[in-house]
Amino acid sequence: MIHVAKNIYRFGNGVADGNGKMTELLGGKGAGLAEMTRLSFPVPPGFTIATDACRFYLSQGIFPSDLSGELRESLAWLEDVAGKRLGDPKDPLLVSVRSGAAVSMPGMMDTILNVGLNDECVQGLAEKSGSERFAFDSYRRLLQMFGSVVMKVPKEVFDSAFKQISQSEGASRESEFSAEALRRVVAVFKDLILEFGGRPFPQNPQEQLSMAIETVFESWRSERAVFYRKLNGISENMGTAVTVQTMVFGNRGVDSGTGVGFSRNPSNGERHIFGEYLCDAQGEDIVAGTRTPTSIGQLEDTSPKLYAELRDLVAQLERHYRDVQDFEFTVESGRLFLLQTRSAKRAALAAVQTAVDMVEEGLITKREGISRVQPASIAEILSPQLDLHAGSPGPLAHGLPASPGAAVGKIALSTSEAVCMAGRGESVILVTEETTADDIEGMAVAVGFLTARGGATSHAAVVARGMGKCCITGARAIRMCDGDAVWIGEKLLHAGDWLSLEGSTGRIFEGQLPTRAASSDLPALNKFLSWAAEVSTSVVRANADTPADAKAALAAGAQGIGLCRTEHMFFAPDRLIAMRAMILATDVKDRIKALEQLLPMQQTDFEKLFRTMPGLPVTIRLLDPPLHEFLPSPEEIDVQIAAARKDENWEQGIALEIERRHIESLTEVNPMMGHRGCRLSLTYPEILQMQVKAILQAALAVAGDEKAGFEPLPEIMVPLVSSEEEMSVLARMIRETADEVFARQGKSIRYTIGTMIELPRAAICAAAIARHVSFISFGTNDLTQMTYGFSRDDARTYLDYYLENGIFKVDPFITIDKEGVGYLIDLAMKQVRMVNPKIKIGVCGEHGGDPESIHFFHSLGVDYVSCSVARLPIAQVAMAQASQKADAQYQAKTEAASGQLAAQDELLSQLSRA
Amino acid sequence: MIHVAKNIYRFGNGVADGNGKMTELLGGKGAGLAEMTRLSFPVPPGFTIATDACRFYLSQGIFPSDLSGELRESLAWLEDVAGKRLGDPKDPLLVSVRSGAAVSMPGMMDTILNVGLNDECVQGLAEKSGSERFAFDSYRRLLQMFGSVVMKVPKEVFDSAFKQISQSEGASRESEFSAEALRRVVAVFKDLILEFGGRPFPQNPQEQLSMAIETVFESWRSERAVFYRKLNGISENMGTAVTVQTMVFGNRGVDSGTGVGFSRNPSNGERHIFGEYLCDAQGEDIVAGTRTPTSIGQLEDTSPKLYAELRDLVAQLERHYRDVQDFEFTVESGRLFLLQTRSAKRAALAAVQTAVDMVEEGLITKREGISRVQPASIAEILSPQLDLHAGSPGPLAHGLPASPGAAVGKIALSTSEAVCMAGRGESVILVTEETTADDIEGMAVAVGFLTARGGATSHAAVVARGMGKCCITGARAIRMCDGDAVWIGEKLLHAGDWLSLEGSTGRIFEGQLPTRAASSDLPALNKFLSWAAEVSTSVVRANADTPADAKAALAAGAQGIGLCRTEHMFFAPDRLIAMRAMILATDVKDRIKALEQLLPMQQTDFEKLFRTMPGLPVTIRLLDPPLHEFLPSPEEIDVQIAAARKDENWEQGIALEIERRHIESLTEVNPMMGHRGCRLSLTYPEILQMQVKAILQAALAVAGDEKAGFEPLPEIMVPLVSSEEEMSVLARMIRETADEVFARQGKSIRYTIGTMIELPRAAICAAAIARHVSFISFGTNDLTQMTYGFSRDDARTYLDYYLENGIFKVDPFITIDKEGVGYLIDLAMKQVRMVNPKIKIGVCGEHGGDPESIHFFHSLGVDYVSCSVARLPIAQVAMAQASQKADAQYQAKTEAASGQLAAQDELLSQLSRA
Repeated sequence: MIHVAKNIYRFGNGVADGNGKMTELLGGKGAGLAEMTRLSFPVPPGFTIATDACRFYLSQGIFPSDLSGELRESLAWLEDVAGKRLGDPKDPLLVSVRSGAAVSMPGMMDTILNVGLNDECVQGLAEKSGSERFAFDSYRRLLQMFGSVVMKVPKEVFDSAFKQISQSEGASRESEFSAEALRRVVAVFKDLILEFGGRPFPQNPQEQLSMAIETVFESWRSERAVFYRKLNGISENMGTAVTVQTMVFGNRGVDSGTGVGFSRNPSNGERHIFGEYLCDAQGEDIVAGTRTPTSIGQLEDTSPKLYAELRDLVAQLERHYRDVQDFEFTVESGRLFLLQTRSAKRAALAAVQTAVDMVEEGLITKREGISRVQPASIAEILSPQLDLHAGSPGPLAHGLPASPGAAVGKIALSTSEAVCMAGRGESVILVTEETTADDIEGMAVAVGFLTARGGATSHAAVVARGMGKCCITGARAIRMCDGDAVWIGEKLLHAGDWLSLEGSTGRIFEGQLPTRAASSDLPALNKFLSWAAEVSTSVVRANADTPADAKAALAAGAQGIGLCRTEHMFFAPDRLIAMRAMILATDVKDRIKALEQLLPMQQTDFEKLFRTMPGLPVTIRLLDPPLHEFLPSPEEIDVQIAAARKDENWEQGIALEIERRHIESLTEVNPMMGHRGCRLSLTYPEILQMQVKAILQAALAVAGDEKAGFEPLPEIMVPLVSSEEEMSVLARMIRETADEVFARQGKSIRYTIGTMIELPRAAICAAAIARHVSFISFGTNDLTQMTYGFSRDDARTYLDYYLENGIFKVDPFITIDKEGVGYLIDLAMKQVRMVNPKIKIGVCGEHGGDPESIHFFHSLGVDYVSCSVARLPIAQVAMAQASQKADAQYQAKTEAASGQLAAQDELLSQLSRA
Repeated sequence: MIHVAKNIYRFGNGVADGNGKMTELLGGKGAGLAEMTRLSFPVPPGFTIATDACRFYLSQGIFPSDLSGELRESLAWLEDVAGKRLGDPKDPLLVSVRSGAAVSMPGMMDTILNVGLNDECVQGLAEKSGSERFAFDSYRRLLQMFGSVVMKVPKEVFDSAFKQISQSEGASRESEFSAEALRRVVAVFKDLILEFGGRPFPQNPQEQLSMAIETVFESWRSERAVFYRKLNGISENMGTAVTVQTMVFGNRGVDSGTGVGFSRNPSNGERHIFGEYLCDAQGEDIVAGTRTPTSIGQLEDTSPKLYAELRDLVAQLERHYRDVQDFEFTVESGRLFLLQTRSAKRAALAAVQTAVDMVEEGLITKREGISRVQPASIAEILSPQLDLHAGSPGPLAHGLPASPGAAVGKIALSTSEAVCMAGRGESVILVTEETTADDIEGMAVAVGFLTARGGATSHAAVVARGMGKCCITGARAIRMCDGDAVWIGEKLLHAGDWLSLEGSTGRIFEGQLPTRAASSDLPALNKFLSWAAEVSTSVVRANADTPADAKAALAAGAQGIGLCRTEHMFFAPDRLIAMRAMILATDVKDRIKALEQLLPMQQTDFEKLFRTMPGLPVTIRLLDPPLHEFLPSPEEIDVQIAAARKDENWEQGIALEIERRHIESLTEVNPMMGHRGCRLSLTYPEILQMQVKAILQAALAVAGDEKAGFEPLPEIMVPLVSSEEEMSVLARMIRETADEVFARQGKSIRYTIGTMIELPRAAICAAAIARHVSFISFGTNDLTQMTYGFSRDDARTYLDYYLENGIFKVDPFITIDKEGVGYLIDLAMKQVRMVNPKIKIGVCGEHGGDPESIHFFHSLGVDYVSCSVARLPIAQVAMAQASQKADAQYQAKTEAASGQLAAQDELLSQLSRA
């Protein structure tokens, strides 16, 4: 069969003009039918009008001039293949007219079945099929669909008439209708079309076909289709293809029927056909839900031959498409036809299970298997979920889904309450206005957090994701009451009341709901993750502040620590006292004394950290947050002052007054842009010196320990650098301190100095800064804040508005902003690589755990990303996929290049022959 | 005279090897002497050893091999010209050996006079001159200078010996010394040199000369010279020239003497010679201050002929050098010699006066006149100054010089106190921890502000410069006490006590010090500023928020308003009530009602603004600050709540509680990066609509007013845009509101829409943003904050440290950071011009009033800068100078190009002849 038409592609009898790759021209459905036909699957013959024609029609308002000729020819061909003719009063050809765009838009566009019937033909069909019921049922279906879809008669008009007749017939459902009743329905429907459609139902089958095609074209720009495309970012310019296909009839009696199914279980990936079947029905009946279908599995008992045939066909489909298939079929008088097949959407668990199974079955390669799973699916599998069902209560309120999973526990309204309740062995949910660094202890013991303020990257959210705990933030329906109560929506709850959180949706439920455990021990998942690590070309490290974090990170396959926030080591009560003494010291001597107390504690922390990361790099960031974060609030001091006064302890009162004033003087208007990061190291060099000492003394201790058997790889990272001058001074200070340590101990160890690039100016001046460091790590949280001028802590009010109103497509704190922030990262990397091609480049912001961002970072060529332990698997999968994509692009380029070479060779050899 | 030597350049008898342009090679002094010689000024002959030789000496430790030969030849030449020979026992040639670098380093390097005398020659000199006193005075001067400078004998050794002899002589000063006494001094000095210098004074005049030259070379790297160069950013590699010049003797009796002077008064520019003269003395006597010189003017009476000669010579010097001259001269036995001349340093007033005078005298062009005045001088002239003198008290404390001028007033410790005191007609200085928007009223009535916190760009500083008032910020020695007292340094002062501030130095004085008024009515200044406006190629506009500001701006020559901050219109008490009602409205209806109250007020403001700027553009920025700036603080509400409870007014108490909660919910962690700018316009579109209505209705009203006779040019500016999406939505909202206004009124007016580029992302994405606007204006304050991650309100603690420790050379909030922030500005401008070559580009941050920054902006090609009214003259002068510099560079390029062309032509014609 050689294709000559411009607009129409035929398929039937095992041959087709089109093929499976031509989705842009033929739509998903048309291309699929062509492909299945070529593969000799039992597909009713037909032809597809290409999207070109639709685009022409939509822009010009008429069919392309050559379309009607092609239609005539194609129809004639179809009549030959089918052995029937459209409008033949004896044995009429009936066709379906279906929409089908390149991108699936389920239910958004129109389809008309049974086209070709009229008052005359219906008699022929009745005689030929031997079933008047079947013929008139088909005719009334045509009238109903054509009437509502093509002639715009309101659907309800048909529905109410149908209901009336069924009542007068005493039939509860259509299969109980007699042929006579159906004749009556047909007559009534024709009257309704004339009345509401403004003209009689067209008896000419050619006219029916032409009108149906035009209607399908038009449906491309129906309101709901436009809305759907807008919602899903689908181009307006594609247009739809129209497939005209010989009807097969599932409504031809008890040995007929229609079904939809999946080649494997789409929920858990189990290897058996899964789906529904409806006897004596056409496809739209399953969708309409008027009758309850049976499970496909039951066919094995009722029609074993049919089931076996279906199973074999589906297995062939999977083999050909190399993926789980979602298919539609019809059985006409015991004969099986496939009407559609496509790759199946599947749940997280199924995605991983089927990917691993299909790799092991040899159906797909490991690399393909990896690309088949959304990284987000991994997060879903790894967190417990609320076990909700039809009878579950509705949520009290909604917040932002800040960290996935489920949490069920008793309400604690403060950190101290949480610690106290957890001490009694209770499961606790911490409910607060918002959390601060002071709440770390409470957060450590709680199973989940719920805050009234803050966004997806607020303190609570970041800590939750870091801890892998469920968290809902920015729940505006929460109002804290004085004392021990909180309004959640319309309900007043008290400390100790049960609450259930659904982190993946942000829903808040009253009471103790049941949960489903996380599936982290799934063998398929472990296998999948190990494959991901195998194919990755960049490394995934973890953000880990404690030895416990580090241990979990190593277990989850982290290839080092990309960010250890040393300040998190200072919040333990005994350390906090020394830390506060250090901050409130009024001279350098006192400050150094307090630091000397902290030194051994830090050193022990670092020793443990190094031991848990044998031979892997550990990046330690010097003190970053503003010092007032470690101090009590002035309000807390006020309480103490009042107590001292009450006890007539005047001396302490005065000391506290002085402390309060000191604390107030450290308060800042915009702490994010205040006295923090390397600015602390410059103004209080003794803090930097203590930390560098602790790091290197720890490294020396571990290296000297024969049992350890490896040398630690400390990387000292300076935060918040804005200029070369800062970096050069600090690098010198670090080296001098290191030299002192080495001289005192008489031995040395390898260490590197690096910096975070987290201010726009650092990115712009990266080349100069890079001259003083061995590695840089992009702190994308702060870089995003500064580039946009968005404070993470405050942005929720307007950022939510932006997202809800489509001003922003994505939250730049979740997915990296390629245009703005990405520009700076790219600019910095290009400069830095030019100055120092060997420099190590990483990312340690929140974006290091976001798949889309990881793809971007990989495309720029970072050496590693670092993310919270809980997001490691997601990041590992994303990194594996990014690596493969890059690899595929490289291969494609290579192939294209070699193709070109071959073409040139060919040309040359032709020339030489000439 | 044809120069053949490599290292030495001779001058004398009206001819010279060098000339005035050869400062790099001959130093300022050598080049000046060569030039003066060529012009036949009476200059003692001599020769200059070029800086090349010094550099060679400094790097190799020896004289260049050919130097001694050249020295011999040059000396022989000099002896011929002078008619005397070095070391001639009968009539010895004496010379001075002087340092002189290309850049003036006054007093930093060495000079030795009277070289050539020894025990024998001194007798000859005595006989030849007929004065033993003169000869031995000269010899003891040589011994003293050579001994201390060349032979490193401590100066004090000579001084104490000299004192002893003068006591024994009963002479109070050296002119009273007898020849015998001077002989004794010579003998003692020689002994001292042997004792402290370790060897006898060299009797060989050749050796004296050689040692003196070497010492001058060495003095290039003396500690004080190195320090001075570091301080002034002078290159270490230049080296000094050495000038060897025939001595002329001011110490030859009463018809001899020495003097220094200015061709015009360096304090006020008056056109007469100004300076000092010392009879019977050598140059160093004036510097030493042992004798009190007389005014040069007195010569007119005492030596009218000499004075006339000097006056004519100085007039010639001015004509030749086309600038005010600072000259040194010596009179030897009634004969006048010039020893040095250079352009004179002058005070601000003199700079302007002499520039204008010299232009009007036809001595220099207008363009030259403009380049002669530092923009900072204008600020100095325009502010009153404390009239400090020797008896004035010392300052109590220091702060940062945030806004220049002087302020003398009584201390007010709060805005309400300031308003109250000012109401009683008192002059008030507002002294606070720091100021906020709430203090505007107090700032409006105060004559100056003093704050304990904040930096050069804090709220107080910015407002002060805007108001042209004196301000000192960040005075850490200030501690506010509870009640009505404040510690300033060691002194406890109370409200109502007198205080005096010196804004240009940051000094704080107790009491009511006298002031000198500003010289703003100076005719020369007005003329100067009008010339500046004439030559500027970019425009200077003013930041003006009120009609009064606008009026002052117009008077000061502003060419439009570049920034009107509409929020400043909301702080008046009657408006603040409506503003608060608007903010605290819980639904859109109430908000619109409150806005409707504000609309007529804003409209009236804008009408006045337009009327004061006839036909000039007025850029109005939509509401920018976070809303909580307009609300009372929670603490204020607490006071009201307590009062309500005391009165048992429970209902009001509850209402206040609710208000307090609302206010708290608007509080932000980092307000600078919070819910402000265009984010307000997007989330509260009704605010934008009100403002746009007010602007356009005002413009229509003024345009319709026949008396006005012009059409206003409103430019609506959207602040804090970070993305194209925001700008496109807002531009549409503005246009829609405008269309409504025009439709309702049945008439329209021209207006433009623009945006501020003040976030790094806006600069990066400027091309996309620019598609929606007609102008952009760089908000360099916020852009600097975000690019560095420095909060202006908090940065002082570390920024001061950076500046003090040389980590930063300049404060990026005062002078634009070209490398980082400047990169973003440049990037944005290039993109924007590419997309829209006609777009108007301005700068409206603080940097718009900083000369160095203005040069940078001009070099990038901005259309205008906008600055506070007080800084307008400075900006105008800086802009004029930048324009000329650009023009000069263009001319230089053109000349170079035409020179190249001529050379090519020449080459071609040579070739054609060949």
